[in-house]
Amino acid sequence: MILIRLAASFRSRTVRFCLATPLLIVSLHAGPWESLFDGKTLDGWKALGGQAPYAVEDGSIVGTTVADTPNAFLATQRTYGDFIFECEVLQEGGPTNSGIQFRSQSLPTYQNGRVHGYQFEIDPSPRAWTGGIYDEARRGWLYPGTLNPAAADLYQLGRWNHIRIEAIGSSLRTWVNGRPVSHVIDGLTREGFIALQVHSVGKQLEQVGRRIRWRNLRIQTSELVPSPLDAIPVRNLQPNDLSAAERAAGWRMLWDGATGARWRGVNQTGFPAQGWTFANGELRCAPTGAKPRGGDLVTQESFGAFEFQFDFRLTAGANSGIKYFVTERPPTEGALGLEFQLLDDERHADAAKGAGGNRLLGSLYDLIPRAVALNGLGIAPRIGEWQHGRIVVHPDHRVEHWLNGINVVEYTRGSPLFKSLVARSKFEKNEGFGLAEKGPILLQDHGDEVHFRSLKIRPLR
Amino acid sequence: MILIRLAASFRSRTVRFCLATPLLIVSLHAGPWESLFDGKTLDGWKALGGQAPYAVEDGSIVGTTVADTPNAFLATQRTYGDFIFECEVLQEGGPTNSGIQFRSQSLPTYQNGRVHGYQFEIDPSPRAWTGGIYDEARRGWLYPGTLNPAAADLYQLGRWNHIRIEAIGSSLRTWVNGRPVSHVIDGLTREGFIALQVHSVGKQLEQVGRRIRWRNLRIQTSELVPSPLDAIPVRNLQPNDLSAAERAAGWRMLWDGATGARWRGVNQTGFPAQGWTFANGELRCAPTGAKPRGGDLVTQESFGAFEFQFDFRLTAGANSGIKYFVTERPPTEGALGLEFQLLDDERHADAAKGAGGNRLLGSLYDLIPRAVALNGLGIAPRIGEWQHGRIVVHPDHRVEHWLNGINVVEYTRGSPLFKSLVARSKFEKNEGFGLAEKGPILLQDHGDEVHFRSLKIRPLR
Repeated sequence: MILIRLAASFRSRTVRFCLATPLLIVSLHAGPWESLFDGKTLDGWKALGGQAPYAVEDGSIVGTTVADTPNAFLATQRTYGDFIFECEVLQEGGPTNSGIQFRSQSLPTYQNGRVHGYQFEIDPSPRAWTGGIYDEARRGWLYPGTLNPAAADLYQLGRWNHIRIEAIGSSLRTWVNGRPVSHVIDGLTREGFIALQVHSVGKQLEQVGRRIRWRNLRIQTSELVPSPLDAIPVRNLQPNDLSAAERAAGWRMLWDGATGARWRGVNQTGFPAQGWTFANGELRCAPTGAKPRGGDLVTQESFGAFEFQFDFRLTAGANSGIKYFVTERPPTEGALGLEFQLLDDERHADAAKGAGGNRLLGSLYDLIPRAVALNGLGIAPRIGEWQHGRIVVHPDHRVEHWLNGINVVEYTRGSPLFKSLVARSKFEKNEGFGLAEKGPILLQDHGDEVHFRSLKIRPLR
Repeated sequence: MILIRLAASFRSRTVRFCLATPLLIVSLHAGPWESLFDGKTLDGWKALGGQAPYAVEDGSIVGTTVADTPNAFLATQRTYGDFIFECEVLQEGGPTNSGIQFRSQSLPTYQNGRVHGYQFEIDPSPRAWTGGIYDEARRGWLYPGTLNPAAADLYQLGRWNHIRIEAIGSSLRTWVNGRPVSHVIDGLTREGFIALQVHSVGKQLEQVGRRIRWRNLRIQTSELVPSPLDAIPVRNLQPNDLSAAERAAGWRMLWDGATGARWRGVNQTGFPAQGWTFANGELRCAPTGAKPRGGDLVTQESFGAFEFQFDFRLTAGANSGIKYFVTERPPTEGALGLEFQLLDDERHADAAKGAGGNRLLGSLYDLIPRAVALNGLGIAPRIGEWQHGRIVVHPDHRVEHWLNGINVVEYTRGSPLFKSLVARSKFEKNEGFGLAEKGPILLQDHGDEVHFRSLKIRPLR
């Protein structure tokens, strides 16, 4: 069959308009489409959650916001595992948050039947994260719009927008108006219903009466042909896993998930004989108080410009960190390097030290504080749970720290500002601090239990 | 007559193409065009400066770069005062700097006949300042491309580009491919030749043999009708002058050029009785060593989000500064505020203090060093000459310091980084430093002679 995708957005500095650009995608063996909506009734659907009403009008399903009710959902009676889903969405009467649940569930055993699971986000707010993937009532943001900022312009308020979701095996992908938005790899839930969300508006009366319309809802469940891989970033939540899309983008594992290969102790040639352990796909630094300790780990390899991703799980009160461009010094002095700080901000005393918060989780330790208040974003640090870090060192020496999908620190190695910060820091006497051309990456043993997994790196040019 | 302008550039994240967009500009009373080139000979032109050859080929004038010769010029034998000039330019064989002189001169009394004056810059380097106005062999950059970054995409290497210059009275304006690039107000030279530049390539042999073609050169000198005013920034070099374009953009004078109106002494209600003087349109802080001194000046008015421009002239070894969001304290403690540092970096001892250069000219004093090395840009600080400063405080609290047309400091008031910088600065004990909602602007009397003029402000929303 032949599938034609429409709508590409072009932008100039003075003019912004939309141009229909046919992107021809020919899939010779794709399976048949099944309609999820007969255009006249809500047969095959059921209401869950809050009291927002759903109706049929002019061949579309219409949901309307009401005050003082929780998130409402119109869910399919059937469940779907692997599928390709498409529909169109139009918002009328002003912006309001919405979304489309998929592989989602409502279980008596989970928060009294609260709808939870993957959500294709519809977000007409200024941040414009439509097409991002949110884990409703469960883990929060899996793929915030920050990961693919080029997609922020795709969704248009007040117009019909074309939406596509591909959920095939562990690969979850979304499109808005023919352009790719999100790519998550996750295996937590393999099957569930599809549901149209009308988000709670609480007591914001100006948001009452806004309408969300869905039409042309259809699904394929057999003979699925995934779309070709796009160049957008992949967020892989499967532990120590490297997807084909990540491999194609140049990523490789920096830890094999089971042994000490690629790593060694600081000032040592081999992996420490004690302190660090491997179990269940986790690289664990010895519990707080345990002795003897393993000391810091460094990569066998050195890196210049690179992108590094890691999952980490902090225990209560823990201090640790990822150092990069590391210089090894005599054992009594410790290894020196730029540090992505890992800390339980609430319980560790170091949080209040330094200056202006420059020792909080995600900060460039003792130099640049984490720039973003994360609590409002549904991405707050979670002690005891897996969190995600990313360090990007560009070839032009710009550096970024990302925490749970948000860019929290930006600076340029060697810039006047960088040098002035170092000159008034713990590192003021360390000539050339952080300016090495290359260096290993270090996992810190600060005496506390911390867990790592999914350590991945790719060189940048 | 009807003049049709062509070529507008549209850009998307994935596709970039050029689209012919007719912009219809109807000028009913414009004067007649006179051709400056007959298509066959160089009649009416003369060679000046270096040895690069000029020839006629296929209806265009062709200049070719050669090694080891100064900048070369093909100049009109006639001179022009007020005019509208148009031509087309094509570069072949790779990028090389070029330009079109206007109101320019070659005088035995000025550097042995060296060609000098206004130049419409042709700059295919990555910074892409084509259409900027450079004062050749005289004051350097008057309108660098930094002032209008939206124009950086207009000029296309390897294609014919349409160029327009309007020099009418003190107003000098440029266009590339139908879009406005520069707007300078300056009265230094009112008449001179037009000349086509082939820039020196020195010993860069890979740049030898590159060709610049000009065609369809034409000029209007009577019944001139200026183009409607555009929204691009104006750089007004006329002392204490406010042009119609600046007024339209919301600018007003913060000093009237002759009295103490709008200003007062810190902790005083009136203008200081001594120390500060007005003469020749300059506001002068008393000579170094003179006593008694006037102390700091502040505006009568307070400002929140604003854009402030100022010309300043430092004497050798001088220290001064512009403070904003100023808080007045008892006379023994001095006024407190964020400071755009003014300093003779070469001669004043404060240049080496602070940390990492955060007390150099243009820096946010003791907090953020000037981020840019200015010497390579033709915009180096010039002690004893007029320089230009600009402070932009956006409504979202982002702040910029500009020095001689270049953005040298950027920060956000109240950000975690800002607070961490303050916490390790001279201001560490000043609770809430720099965070006032509004405050006056201050001219510092640091005991040295410094001159100000052209103080202009506009509120930002």
